Amino acid sequence: MSETCKNKGPLSRGTWVEPRDLRISSQETDFWDGIFLSILKINRMSEKLETIRHSAAHVMAAAVQKLFPDAKFGIGPVIEDGFYYDFDLKESLTPEHLQKIEKEMEKIIKGKLKFEREEMDIDKAIKMFKDLKQDYKVELLKDLKEKGTTKLKSEEEQELVADGEKISVYRLGDFVDLCRGPHVKHSGDIKVFKLLNLAGAYWRGSEKNPMLQRIYGTAWQKQKELDEYLRVQEEAAKRDHRKLGKELEIFLFNENIGKGLPLLLPNGRVLRDEILKLEREIEDQVGFERVWTPHIAKSDLYKLTGHWDHYQDDMFPPFGLEDETYVLRPMNCPHHYMIYKSKPHSYREFPLRITEDGTCYRFEKSGELGGLARVRCLTIDDAHVFITPDQIEEEYTRLIDMTKQMFEAFQLKDYKVTLSTHDSDNTEKYIADEKTWNRAEATLEKVLKQNKIKYEIGKGEAAFYGPKLDFVVKDVLGRDWQMSTLQIDFFMAERLNMTYVDAKGKDAYPIIIHRGFTGSLERTIAMLIEHFSGAFPVWLSPTQVKIISVGSAHIKFCHELKKELSSLGIRSNVDDVNETVGNKIRKAEKEKVPYMLVIGDKEMNGGELTVRLRGEKEMKKMKKDEFIERILDEIKERS
Amino acid sequence: MSETCKNKGPLSRGTWVEPRDLRISSQETDFWDGIFLSILKINRMSEKLETIRHSAAHVMAAAVQKLFPDAKFGIGPVIEDGFYYDFDLKESLTPEHLQKIEKEMEKIIKGKLKFEREEMDIDKAIKMFKDLKQDYKVELLKDLKEKGTTKLKSEEEQELVADGEKISVYRLGDFVDLCRGPHVKHSGDIKVFKLLNLAGAYWRGSEKNPMLQRIYGTAWQKQKELDEYLRVQEEAAKRDHRKLGKELEIFLFNENIGKGLPLLLPNGRVLRDEILKLEREIEDQVGFERVWTPHIAKSDLYKLTGHWDHYQDDMFPPFGLEDETYVLRPMNCPHHYMIYKSKPHSYREFPLRITEDGTCYRFEKSGELGGLARVRCLTIDDAHVFITPDQIEEEYTRLIDMTKQMFEAFQLKDYKVTLSTHDSDNTEKYIADEKTWNRAEATLEKVLKQNKIKYEIGKGEAAFYGPKLDFVVKDVLGRDWQMSTLQIDFFMAERLNMTYVDAKGKDAYPIIIHRGFTGSLERTIAMLIEHFSGAFPVWLSPTQVKIISVGSAHIKFCHELKKELSSLGIRSNVDDVNETVGNKIRKAEKEKVPYMLVIGDKEMNGGELTVRLRGEKEMKKMKKDEFIERILDEIKERS
Repeated sequence: MSETCKNKGPLSRGTWVEPRDLRISSQETDFWDGIFLSILKINRMSEKLETIRHSAAHVMAAAVQKLFPDAKFGIGPVIEDGFYYDFDLKESLTPEHLQKIEKEMEKIIKGKLKFEREEMDIDKAIKMFKDLKQDYKVELLKDLKEKGTTKLKSEEEQELVADGEKISVYRLGDFVDLCRGPHVKHSGDIKVFKLLNLAGAYWRGSEKNPMLQRIYGTAWQKQKELDEYLRVQEEAAKRDHRKLGKELEIFLFNENIGKGLPLLLPNGRVLRDEILKLEREIEDQVGFERVWTPHIAKSDLYKLTGHWDHYQDDMFPPFGLEDETYVLRPMNCPHHYMIYKSKPHSYREFPLRITEDGTCYRFEKSGELGGLARVRCLTIDDAHVFITPDQIEEEYTRLIDMTKQMFEAFQLKDYKVTLSTHDSDNTEKYIADEKTWNRAEATLEKVLKQNKIKYEIGKGEAAFYGPKLDFVVKDVLGRDWQMSTLQIDFFMAERLNMTYVDAKGKDAYPIIIHRGFTGSLERTIAMLIEHFSGAFPVWLSPTQVKIISVGSAHIKFCHELKKELSSLGIRSNVDDVNETVGNKIRKAEKEKVPYMLVIGDKEMNGGELTVRLRGEKEMKKMKKDEFIERILDEIKERS
Repeated sequence: MSETCKNKGPLSRGTWVEPRDLRISSQETDFWDGIFLSILKINRMSEKLETIRHSAAHVMAAAVQKLFPDAKFGIGPVIEDGFYYDFDLKESLTPEHLQKIEKEMEKIIKGKLKFEREEMDIDKAIKMFKDLKQDYKVELLKDLKEKGTTKLKSEEEQELVADGEKISVYRLGDFVDLCRGPHVKHSGDIKVFKLLNLAGAYWRGSEKNPMLQRIYGTAWQKQKELDEYLRVQEEAAKRDHRKLGKELEIFLFNENIGKGLPLLLPNGRVLRDEILKLEREIEDQVGFERVWTPHIAKSDLYKLTGHWDHYQDDMFPPFGLEDETYVLRPMNCPHHYMIYKSKPHSYREFPLRITEDGTCYRFEKSGELGGLARVRCLTIDDAHVFITPDQIEEEYTRLIDMTKQMFEAFQLKDYKVTLSTHDSDNTEKYIADEKTWNRAEATLEKVLKQNKIKYEIGKGEAAFYGPKLDFVVKDVLGRDWQMSTLQIDFFMAERLNMTYVDAKGKDAYPIIIHRGFTGSLERTIAMLIEHFSGAFPVWLSPTQVKIISVGSAHIKFCHELKKELSSLGIRSNVDDVNETVGNKIRKAEKEKVPYMLVIGDKEMNGGELTVRLRGEKEMKKMKKDEFIERILDEIKERS
């Protein structure tokens, strides 16, 4: 864990988004209020498309105003793949309403209404929206007047109301909205759109405010693009890990345990254990010191590290115990630092790598939670690598290679990296001198090139304490998932007085690399479920072999076979229920088990096994040894 | 986790003690205040020896009164292997004082002073101790008068002051004490004693009260017994896991993290992982559903289960989150119950075994913490087995067999079991009918006999919800450690409405078996450190092979060898420091590494390996393959 990169600007402006569990600052927290879960899956959008979508949101609002003249308007920003608008309506919207609104929008589009910009003083704007009985807009404008734009709740809100000293509004027929723009020239420029769904959303993200009705929509330049988008959406809905997680009995939430606190069922535990086993194997090739540390600490610890001041909003609330104050840890780093500090160190030990699959607890508003992708309890496969300044290149080479091995095992072939660097025009905000930064950044770039990894540079996106690499992988549907991170930290060793004796016998501060292997196990499980649509490769499959008895005479043999497979490390289950083989195969297909063995008289009496592969209709005949060798090989090779 | 067995009566009366982490009631908590950590290592004491030790405590107090006439007396009970007495003295005691007190005691013993019993009304007793300025005794008596004995702080206190309606006091020369007795006839009956050490202890265990000075002593019938006791104590001190844990870099505590919260260093993590691997292998032979659940839950969960009312004092304090109240879990059971309840169940699935290595948090007073044996953060290797009433015998047979396999791997050959049963004279306190109890108890006894396990019956020691088996193992020094527990629960399924469909198609409540495999991983690590004195068998050894380079020319080869061993799953380390081979061997011996390989020219050039075994002076020549085969075999067989 490390300080955040200061990603300002909304998602749609093409910046990279760090998932919450890799960030430290809470400054951007509110930015996320009420936004789609899918924000973690990042797509870039052209400015043109963004303008079309923004304009479509206005057209939708104008249509709503037409159909519901009493409507009060919240905000209506562009989001990934589309837009939304929040409305305060007396009537409860239904899917039928969406069709009516779409029809009304089509009329407006046919009418080729102009988007007319007008600038005015803030007091005039307040009066105008008061006259229109648009209370939410008035509230925003009053906030703006009182505190200035920077104090507004979210960046979208800022975007919508302010551009310099003057307030800009846009008119579209009878509909007028606070807006910075830009927009398309007229509504006829919106060619392809669709309203998607309805949701409730608290005004400004707070449960103390009224609940508004949100309509999500999307707009594209070509019908083909919309069709492809809807196809991917449909496929994504089928793969939704929340849906599959339930069907495949991978995880659950329970209201008596609490929100955002996942319970991994036996199948989910297999996924977790297999991911950790993979990571451990990769780590053991290199040499990591694996530790185990508790999930709480005194709040004093976070005062030492500085998290108490900067990160508290994202932490669970503290509690007193005897005369001390404790808190659930939001990251593993400080525990590892205490281990580092427990004895003196020499450069000879470096790189010294402390690793742990450590469960952490972070406060997320309940409205922001979503399946395993956004939880309050997450296991971070963290490592902290202590190196000398000369070791950046060799250690990054190793760590990148490890990351690639992991992606390969997950069958993630397409990924790219952002190298977040400092801004040389703005050096005073960074720790360490410019030369150190330049050297480190050049080294990271060199290693990326040597590894032939696609990357882009996020100039000025580094945190104040060091440059970093963030890995974003594409799943089979082309959606982006933030995963590994490799961050340099020039700062914390000095702050906590973590030292080592260098080759000259002098005390020095190590450079620390924060490594998040996957980032969080929970999100990785979510990603893998969606990436594989639940049909995991053999090594990850909770049940690798389903043994199907033809009749009651074969049940005993099935269980003996299961025992044999189990002793070889193969996970199997017997379906010995009194049903037809066809039924049992259908069930196993639904459970997405990679291998089915149908056991009847022949198979029991030493004949070849009858094997059915997931997704294939034909049965194969295979000698038992051959089958076992094949499956063991697939497990070993993670193929 | 389960309700406690209602072990009343002090330890010295020969009852079995459940360690805190297997108990649920907080009623006995105070009983432990300020008592030696070693209370977990239980010894039985004859009543005669107990009387001698109790009398020795009086003799010590009489000696203190002689030397410090202003002394005020707290309490002085018998504990495991000895006794103590708490004094309020103006002077701070030093080890020199202990010698003086011992001399004074010898005089009293030579004087053969009689222990004279006197009975009186409570008001007379209060007046008498007031006159003697014995404020603490007066306080106890006033408490007794006001609330009756049952409300007194601890059972020792009750023992010391009350016997029926009258108050009994014992005189020994000028010294008079509140005491139930019995005592030896005269001080000359105390033959062999020794004062051991000093400690501070708050009056009645509360930090709000004055700190008293406690003197620990021991007494025996024969000099030989005392000598043996002191020898074992000395050996135990050498093996103390707190001392070895530090020297061998197994665990540490850190003041910034908090009290009772252990951090496992890489060597400790190996121990933890190896114990879990062993357990997993044993479980996988039988078939367990492994889950993973969070470390917190809503406090509502514990209201459902009943823990909130009965166990809250032993839990961490709750904290609010949004509008809900959460708390760190003190046990895993309720999380597992929620998993059970998440779908319908049939008798066909039974025995259904849900298992987890789940970390729990329990409040222990800081004065009660001690190394890894008594912590606030403990990982319980819990399982909950759901069975039909007919499955008790087969499932206990399996579970006992699993426990035996584990003890064997730990080289724990000597263990015994208590079968805690209900009290048929007092049936109203138990859930379920007498027939059910009798049948279950008879079944457990039958299984114990079939397994030829030493056991005794703790009549009336069962909790209200079912009978249970507790395993106590002896380590190599003959000290007892509470480990596994197998408890029947007739209660919780009905309370939480956990049902299954039985063979007749009707809804029924399962019987639940609570299985603690080791009880807690932390205490098991403590026990293993002391049992093996840190010289673990190969499979448990954090470093299995130390590769020692003779000169700088051999270093590269050493590291290649380490890589080869690592790829085979053998944990090795290279000592390539510029030191003599003798020095390096001495270091490795200190680290208690089972195998050392000395690598010089011959070994590097394909010759046989030079192997040194831990504790042996002679080097052995061995072919590399032979060495690898040997060590892999030892790891596999856990020999």
